[in-house]
Amino acid sequence: MNKEQPIGIFDSGLGGLTIFKALKKLLPEESLIYFGDSAHVPYGSKSKETVTRFSLEIAKFLESKNIKLLIIACNTASALALKEVEKNVSVPVIGVITPGAQQAVKKTKNKHIAVIGTEATVNSKAYRSALQKINKKLSVIETACPLFVPLIEEGFIGGKAADLVIEKYLKNIKNSKSDTLILGCTHYPVIKKDIQKYLGPRVALIDSADAVALTAKEMLASKNLLADKKAVYSVYASDAPERFGQKAQKVLGLKIKKVLLKKFA
Amino acid sequence: MNKEQPIGIFDSGLGGLTIFKALKKLLPEESLIYFGDSAHVPYGSKSKETVTRFSLEIAKFLESKNIKLLIIACNTASALALKEVEKNVSVPVIGVITPGAQQAVKKTKNKHIAVIGTEATVNSKAYRSALQKINKKLSVIETACPLFVPLIEEGFIGGKAADLVIEKYLKNIKNSKSDTLILGCTHYPVIKKDIQKYLGPRVALIDSADAVALTAKEMLASKNLLADKKAVYSVYASDAPERFGQKAQKVLGLKIKKVLLKKFA
Repeated sequence: MNKEQPIGIFDSGLGGLTIFKALKKLLPEESLIYFGDSAHVPYGSKSKETVTRFSLEIAKFLESKNIKLLIIACNTASALALKEVEKNVSVPVIGVITPGAQQAVKKTKNKHIAVIGTEATVNSKAYRSALQKINKKLSVIETACPLFVPLIEEGFIGGKAADLVIEKYLKNIKNSKSDTLILGCTHYPVIKKDIQKYLGPRVALIDSADAVALTAKEMLASKNLLADKKAVYSVYASDAPERFGQKAQKVLGLKIKKVLLKKFA
Repeated sequence: MNKEQPIGIFDSGLGGLTIFKALKKLLPEESLIYFGDSAHVPYGSKSKETVTRFSLEIAKFLESKNIKLLIIACNTASALALKEVEKNVSVPVIGVITPGAQQAVKKTKNKHIAVIGTEATVNSKAYRSALQKINKKLSVIETACPLFVPLIEEGFIGGKAADLVIEKYLKNIKNSKSDTLILGCTHYPVIKKDIQKYLGPRVALIDSADAVALTAKEMLASKNLLADKKAVYSVYASDAPERFGQKAQKVLGLKIKKVLLKKFA
């Protein structure tokens, strides 16, 4: 392996680009290859088996692009498919669950942590086990917020409809003792302000993008694999690449010159 | 072909079960095989090529089940893939666009028709061409309502959040001359009451499920293929069949004994 090889990142759709942005900022010399699975998005309502099948196809594709590290930038895929992906590729793999859990444990003062995510992530209890692996005595509540992703993808941000949906999903968390909330889906940072407004300053929000970027930096440094030349970026989508690029700009303010199409049979 | 062969029906997900219900009611002796593509749902934001690929796989599978008629119970797949499916299977194929358009033309008094659907359906202009093929002088406006499907699937029905989203999407239609609105997505009948409440009694809503069932009846009758024995029903999903069954009951009040799993490679 050499240090100028790129880092591969994948997500079911756009959300993982929040991690792409965090990596670009923290590690400006690292080349990045992003893959958004727009043919199969969303993952959050699908089964472990199906999400694993999609994840393995993408991991193999990114491996063929000669990456030195693979980041699963999707909470659902991290929760359901991390182990299978690790078994099937020859590069190190980082998911988003553990870095997010570690950050939350550092942040909480009263040991009450709440987690929001897709239905599949919440049902997998992946955050609960990652958190309680660090500290058995943590109290953890988990809530699925299945409408957040489409709300964000369709640009219903900062309005009354979004506020009503936030209230419906987060009421229990607001009424709980939780002082820390893990945003367990890469889309959610887009409505961070609205969530913070509803929950008030008592609750700290954990957006794992920065934590993941930091974990990647530490891992590469420990193996002496940090790049030091000019970075090259490429972005792939498995369907409608132009639309993917337009949405990335609209939702995340990220300008991508050209999104490449990579279909699976 | 013999008259006791079943009718095949497919949709990206649950929505097409509204057509399953209409068929069951109008033709209680017809055996039905339903396929919901829960591994790939939703179709409405995906490309023509990808939706066609998914549709052909399902059509071939249903053909292997010895059907006498195939109904594409999904507006997006009808808009994007009908011709390709017709080319590739040996049974007659009915989509939802033409029956819905015919019904709307019968209903309108002032020749102003509005259509709502997914992004892909609206961008395809399939309703506009079907309507103007019947009458060139019709005025047609089309609006994409991408958040309706997830709102319905997540049970946000009849509440304030749904009302706000309805208002945002349908304001232009309310302010237009349209006296007829085609519900151009099989999910939308679930929020028919809310839509009617917002638009008022001046606008007639066209739910194509009944029109499609009637078209099927006429086609089978003309070929002397109407069944006259006891009907058998089966339902397949391409992912998470149990969850599919639960949602069918929750969203559509349809009790399905067992949903079978059929995966594609």
